[in-house]
Amino acid sequence: MLAEIKGLNEECGVFAIWGHEKAAEMTYYGLHALQHRGQEGAGIVTSDGDQLHLHKGIGLINEVFQEGQIKELTGSAAIGHVRYATQGGGGYENVQPLLFRSQTSSMALAHNGNLVNAFALKAQLEAQGSILQTTSDTEVVAHLIKRSGYLSLEEAIKQALGMIKGAYAFTFLTEHQLFVALDPRGLRPLSLGKLGDAYVVASETCAFDLIGAEYLREVKPGELITIDKDGLKSSSFSSPMRRSLCAMEYVYFSRPDSNVNGQNVHASRKTMGKQLAKEAIVEADVVTGVPDSSISAAIGFSEASGIPYELGLIKNRYVGRTFIQPSQELREQGVKMKLSPVRGIVEGKRVVMVDDSIVRGTTSRRIVRLLKDAGATEVHVRIASPPIVNPCYYGIDTSTKSELIAANYSVEEMCEQIGADSLAFLSVDGLEQSIVKEPSIEDGICHACFTGNYPTEIYPDTVIPAYKD
Amino acid sequence: MLAEIKGLNEECGVFAIWGHEKAAEMTYYGLHALQHRGQEGAGIVTSDGDQLHLHKGIGLINEVFQEGQIKELTGSAAIGHVRYATQGGGGYENVQPLLFRSQTSSMALAHNGNLVNAFALKAQLEAQGSILQTTSDTEVVAHLIKRSGYLSLEEAIKQALGMIKGAYAFTFLTEHQLFVALDPRGLRPLSLGKLGDAYVVASETCAFDLIGAEYLREVKPGELITIDKDGLKSSSFSSPMRRSLCAMEYVYFSRPDSNVNGQNVHASRKTMGKQLAKEAIVEADVVTGVPDSSISAAIGFSEASGIPYELGLIKNRYVGRTFIQPSQELREQGVKMKLSPVRGIVEGKRVVMVDDSIVRGTTSRRIVRLLKDAGATEVHVRIASPPIVNPCYYGIDTSTKSELIAANYSVEEMCEQIGADSLAFLSVDGLEQSIVKEPSIEDGICHACFTGNYPTEIYPDTVIPAYKD
Amino acid sequence: MLAEIKGLNEECGVFAIWGHEKAAEMTYYGLHALQHRGQEGAGIVTSDGDQLHLHKGIGLINEVFQEGQIKELTGSAAIGHVRYATQGGGGYENVQPLLFRSQTSSMALAHNGNLVNAFALKAQLEAQGSILQTTSDTEVVAHLIKRSGYLSLEEAIKQALGMIKGAYAFTFLTEHQLFVALDPRGLRPLSLGKLGDAYVVASETCAFDLIGAEYLREVKPGELITIDKDGLKSSSFSSPMRRSLCAMEYVYFSRPDSNVNGQNVHASRKTMGKQLAKEAIVEADVVTGVPDSSISAAIGFSEASGIPYELGLIKNRYVGRTFIQPSQELREQGVKMKLSPVRGIVEGKRVVMVDDSIVRGTTSRRIVRLLKDAGATEVHVRIASPPIVNPCYYGIDTSTKSELIAANYSVEEMCEQIGADSLAFLSVDGLEQSIVKEPSIEDGICHACFTGNYPTEIYPDTVIPAYKD
Amino acid sequence: MLAEIKGLNEECGVFAIWGHEKAAEMTYYGLHALQHRGQEGAGIVTSDGDQLHLHKGIGLINEVFQEGQIKELTGSAAIGHVRYATQGGGGYENVQPLLFRSQTSSMALAHNGNLVNAFALKAQLEAQGSILQTTSDTEVVAHLIKRSGYLSLEEAIKQALGMIKGAYAFTFLTEHQLFVALDPRGLRPLSLGKLGDAYVVASETCAFDLIGAEYLREVKPGELITIDKDGLKSSSFSSPMRRSLCAMEYVYFSRPDSNVNGQNVHASRKTMGKQLAKEAIVEADVVTGVPDSSISAAIGFSEASGIPYELGLIKNRYVGRTFIQPSQELREQGVKMKLSPVRGIVEGKRVVMVDDSIVRGTTSRRIVRLLKDAGATEVHVRIASPPIVNPCYYGIDTSTKSELIAANYSVEEMCEQIGADSLAFLSVDGLEQSIVKEPSIEDGICHACFTGNYPTEIYPDTVIPAYKD
Repeated sequence: MLAEIKGLNEECGVFAIWGHEKAAEMTYYGLHALQHRGQEGAGIVTSDGDQLHLHKGIGLINEVFQEGQIKELTGSAAIGHVRYATQGGGGYENVQPLLFRSQTSSMALAHNGNLVNAFALKAQLEAQGSILQTTSDTEVVAHLIKRSGYLSLEEAIKQALGMIKGAYAFTFLTEHQLFVALDPRGLRPLSLGKLGDAYVVASETCAFDLIGAEYLREVKPGELITIDKDGLKSSSFSSPMRRSLCAMEYVYFSRPDSNVNGQNVHASRKTMGKQLAKEAIVEADVVTGVPDSSISAAIGFSEASGIPYELGLIKNRYVGRTFIQPSQELREQGVKMKLSPVRGIVEGKRVVMVDDSIVRGTTSRRIVRLLKDAGATEVHVRIASPPIVNPCYYGIDTSTKSELIAANYSVEEMCEQIGADSLAFLSVDGLEQSIVKEPSIEDGICHACFTGNYPTEIYPDTVIPAYKD
Repeated sequence: MLAEIKGLNEECGVFAIWGHEKAAEMTYYGLHALQHRGQEGAGIVTSDGDQLHLHKGIGLINEVFQEGQIKELTGSAAIGHVRYATQGGGGYENVQPLLFRSQTSSMALAHNGNLVNAFALKAQLEAQGSILQTTSDTEVVAHLIKRSGYLSLEEAIKQALGMIKGAYAFTFLTEHQLFVALDPRGLRPLSLGKLGDAYVVASETCAFDLIGAEYLREVKPGELITIDKDGLKSSSFSSPMRRSLCAMEYVYFSRPDSNVNGQNVHASRKTMGKQLAKEAIVEADVVTGVPDSSISAAIGFSEASGIPYELGLIKNRYVGRTFIQPSQELREQGVKMKLSPVRGIVEGKRVVMVDDSIVRGTTSRRIVRLLKDAGATEVHVRIASPPIVNPCYYGIDTSTKSELIAANYSVEEMCEQIGADSLAFLSVDGLEQSIVKEPSIEDGICHACFTGNYPTEIYPDTVIPAYKD
Repeated sequence: MLAEIKGLNEECGVFAIWGHEKAAEMTYYGLHALQHRGQEGAGIVTSDGDQLHLHKGIGLINEVFQEGQIKELTGSAAIGHVRYATQGGGGYENVQPLLFRSQTSSMALAHNGNLVNAFALKAQLEAQGSILQTTSDTEVVAHLIKRSGYLSLEEAIKQALGMIKGAYAFTFLTEHQLFVALDPRGLRPLSLGKLGDAYVVASETCAFDLIGAEYLREVKPGELITIDKDGLKSSSFSSPMRRSLCAMEYVYFSRPDSNVNGQNVHASRKTMGKQLAKEAIVEADVVTGVPDSSISAAIGFSEASGIPYELGLIKNRYVGRTFIQPSQELREQGVKMKLSPVRGIVEGKRVVMVDDSIVRGTTSRRIVRLLKDAGATEVHVRIASPPIVNPCYYGIDTSTKSELIAANYSVEEMCEQIGADSLAFLSVDGLEQSIVKEPSIEDGICHACFTGNYPTEIYPDTVIPAYKD
Repeated sequence: MLAEIKGLNEECGVFAIWGHEKAAEMTYYGLHALQHRGQEGAGIVTSDGDQLHLHKGIGLINEVFQEGQIKELTGSAAIGHVRYATQGGGGYENVQPLLFRSQTSSMALAHNGNLVNAFALKAQLEAQGSILQTTSDTEVVAHLIKRSGYLSLEEAIKQALGMIKGAYAFTFLTEHQLFVALDPRGLRPLSLGKLGDAYVVASETCAFDLIGAEYLREVKPGELITIDKDGLKSSSFSSPMRRSLCAMEYVYFSRPDSNVNGQNVHASRKTMGKQLAKEAIVEADVVTGVPDSSISAAIGFSEASGIPYELGLIKNRYVGRTFIQPSQELREQGVKMKLSPVRGIVEGKRVVMVDDSIVRGTTSRRIVRLLKDAGATEVHVRIASPPIVNPCYYGIDTSTKSELIAANYSVEEMCEQIGADSLAFLSVDGLEQSIVKEPSIEDGICHACFTGNYPTEIYPDTVIPAYKD
């Protein structure tokens, strides 16, 4: 139940379009489909072939953009970004895309991911006299490009990408070109599509569906795509490596209607739920999922186990940022805002509560208690992913090791702490098989947070992004 | 799919509390649980035993109330209201509770329902020199009370209730008393509970669950409850009549976690779905529901039919009032905001699409098309309620007869119009049995919109509330 | 310095127009010119010949009205109102115009003034079963009209006006007629003008100047003007009485560019300043006025005395309602927001500080201290009006007797309290001569606050409006 | 009437404080006093000795800062800035102070003025691989400091200042030091004061007066002041040159209560008005000034000529940015928003209209017409400064040569164009004598806009700041 802990569901999302007369508008709708990946800030940069136009701000898409502002973003090419809330993020400055203007040309960048050698690169740049104005990794790449000395921007970008390490899905827009790049391991998802004659790129395919675009293929790990008036050109800036797509995209990040690397997310989650039922069946009366991200797995668990699936927990749709939160005293008196147990369903029943993950355990404990207070006689917690025992350096918000309950306690101890009658996790193999049909160089997942097997170098000064609570 | 047509989910909701030191705060949370019943306006009136305090406004609860405003609503008794958007509603003036101050005392009223003889009562009042400042039925009742001439307020209220006809759940608050009344047919739901020593009243029990209150019983049809420093007193202002609780509360209005007249709403809907499968089975690959109100019925249909339940349609959580809507041109190009079909689920499949109701048919046609565009080979529409062929005079937003598709076309014609491969509705008997376990004077539903059998008089000048689109 | 005490400059303002295709827009600009008379709320009602349209709200004109809202106020007739902040005013409900709709017709009212028998009238109305929804006198008049029983609205209005006592300038708008009425003593100013073929009415002539309208004449005390498709008709609802126009309109309320009852306000103030110099000359180096309302009198004092006029005090233009006010501690350290003394002007100088009035004395004391802290060797305070020793019952915000410094202390005591080197007031005769050139039945002032000679009855239950601080 | 043309009164303002426990709050009030110098944006950076804290935004001080935000700006040192609206200014990014963080330290800068060699410096920096993120000159200085290679920041700042040319008043804040610098010609005003033990610096002394600070002395041309825990240290980064303080500060920029370089602004303006009366007397009935900046000169003209000073023009206080502006059609019908002529004063009179300056002439023409429409028989325009015939490169908003009416027409032609009966300007000598009592190396003005005699080099690529209309 990663999403619940943060009060947010996701990390960043990128979108790009080239060759559409309503580029800004399509980007607006595309970002709207990706809103779950980031709710702190949003921005769009367009090119009209002569100039770049930027509008960005703090908040949701519909808070940042008014109709008139979209109209001022003229041009047939655009990149857009939705940003996840990170701590100490510096506010407006860090909202992407970042736009860098010089006296001769301009360049805009947007980025989903996290670099593992950003600290060292920043130190070098500053030692050479550069001033960095944001705390974002994205700006590092801009400086590397600016300092490259190469004649063509494409070469400069390749040189810069050769110096950075980690997880990234980048889009770059100039007056005349759109560049798209994915890290050599393909840690982050990135898909390519077409909308009429226009090319579109998005973190998730649900953005294509919303605007009626057609899916073409995945952007490949280590690929640099260049799109300009002469069309689309693909090249590699890194030799082929085994794909390590973040498993968490399937577990809870991506939208169920997206296909990530060709696999439908809802279907993958349902398979995880079925697999979980096989691995850890239990006798019970009803199965319920923690909305929204665990519903698919709960349905799968129900199907495989034969235990009926019910709406045992309801998520309140109207809890927004401006809501007056109940005081601690009121919470103890029982006032609960986000999730409501359905007494009529769980009273007197043995309940299987399926959740997508456990991070600190506090949320699970709270939900178990909600269900028991509503009359559940037994609550069996089933987690549709393995225990998280390692921090993520690639942009997933899972906290440091000391805060990860599974890194510090056994399954039995955790079960006791959350007050459940039983607790079981999906196995790493079970997870992998639920996602990857036929393992290949193009189809593999990163499961470092479960296994510690990181697909890239990690340095002593690699920063775990600190997220806002 | 009533909710989708209006872009809103519901009609009004009332909440009241007596004897709690945080009366305003509890009312705020209680209204929050009832937010789905009305999103146009919200208000709270408290009594501190000496004075009434009002704050109300246009918008959602969290838009209307800031922390400081709750604090200024001092006192241990409160009534609150959330309001559904009706056309020409006059804005702020019509937001409830209405507060009437005179030089000697004050009275606040809030109301869920619709009177069928309001027009005649208003004409009489105005002929006698009264000035009505709102278009709401609630004000009529205030004037009737004011003009009653009775010595006690309780008697005056009873006299006024004796003059009004229709559907209503009323709360009245003065400096010293709280009154609660339900119409003689019990058309609207209204429940009584306890929170510690305090009494609470709400349109739905989900409000009790959210604040940790205990359910006591239903407010009875024709009952007037008086609560003051001497405790709770019940009396009747009308002889017992057979209950006619609005079936639509079960079909789509109420929250699935509420118990309405003792029946859990999710369970009732699931039963409707099972019954629908019995009445109108079809060969198919997947069952999907239109979120949010049709999910329960879809799960029931799946269970009874054995066809797997899938998330074939995703509702976008971030579409708010301030969203820039796509132009007609863009909608035709395929940009869709509120609902997304899940291509990975429906492609190449025969889909049963379960919805709660059909009003004008336009939404159903749009969803069928979404599913077919996403690759569904067949779409079988199953509606978990009977065809709506008559207007509602009791506060449910179903439009006039000329707009009701089922009032003007046969099922076959409708099927063709919405582009489905087959279409079937739940029978009236099937609906009634899904809701009412043992019919009795205290347990019956109003199905006038399906059958034309209205439980009260209807006059030529009875107004169908005109709702905003 | 009445204005400074309240942080506001004035009481209410009314505007009306009949027969102009841009009635709402013209009213918007007209109210804008009257903004100094009321800053708490603003509203406009228009008639399109068939229906009345209302928009009103809390705040300044430009906060209440957006372009689109003006456009929705269709029709060629309009009345508008700006409202002064009174305490416990009940917010939005009390913002004028008030609009009363019945099933057969509608009527809007707006009003500048204060009734002295409102309490008794309200008590009677409530005893007869009427519900009053606001605390404003304006609503009383609406109820009196509604209950009159007369066949024509004109007769009903006359009957109602015959029952009210006090100070009032009323405008009434129906679908088909505009009515304008001034109290029999003419306590409040009200002027009639023409804009092309349209008639316009305003509290001050500065509203005519701003929209390019031509001044015709004053509305006469006791006159009811009726304007409809047949043109303008004048009638009397009261026999002629000696005019008692509020002297405070000249002293500080009205704008200097307005002509009130034919006399220019700036010229009147300058004459007051000259007369004050004659009555209370003093040896000094510079004359300065407290901005904005005392500038004219200071210029007059300078001219008559030969002492140079200087900008010794500057008013800060950017202090708005949202400003963070300095804490008491900071104020004592010398942080001052609204007024700044000009050290370069007053240092080492003997200063005559001209102000329009003294109410509580606290502001005068503060300003004297500002000037001395800035180096003034002597500060001689000269007040361009007599001492205020009685409360006002007609709408001017001067507080109760106990708070009026001049009602409780001698001039010598006041001089000491405010820390001045000398203090003198204009005489009542001097004031009267400065305003009224040739006393007549049509040209006289109310000076009750100086002399206690009230031009109407005052009752034990007459309410002094309580203004917000 | 420079201010009227822009709808704004001024250019930028800076404030700094060192050693005060309420540094942010004092800066807030100090900036409030300087608000007239810039209304587009405002910002404050504080140092708590360990970290810098920034808050800035678009709008007025009271729009940008809420109480909580001031509280978060902890520390005993602060710099603040108010920004004038320049065209294409890039919005938020360009709002000052600019804050540059590196991994080892941070520096904030704020600046009033304009560099004449910024273009060349930017080109050089970009060629060396720097990325500039704003269009402001301030950032150039930050990059020059960063690249200096010097060991101490003080030396680095001096080196950077040695490379820039033009007009500037700079403040720099680090965790441990405050630096203040004025350009070698002293083109912009900058004063030093004390508030208890704290040092304060401000563009105008009115900021000192508002917070109760004591004036110490002017910051000297070419002086770098360093303030840290060891106290204040002064050094020179340039040899002494003759002061060339912008004459426009006296003519209309600065507040009348400020002393600029020791001269009170109101007094200087009054002297200009007296001198103008000597140079260009005319027979007339009344003298009036265009509010606010020309009032002092009008009073002086009146005193020297013996023609009475009157309020012939009133400025409307409530015209804000959100006001609905009248359409062209309405303006032609006579609707006027900002300035109102006082008919009662000017009707039938020969009027001397004193204004501070003429830029394009359109405003003068409009005011002359207002006065004539209000009945003035003659309008004699007297300008209290010489004709502006050259653009300003130092930050004053006077437009390009082609737009300057005086650069293209003779006085007679201008008189005809603005529709006046006569027109006269103050002589350059008359202006200089009104400001500078005893010319010396420390006391001289820049009159380049009148004479073309620029005190610094001007390059072909020197940019005239383009201001928003």
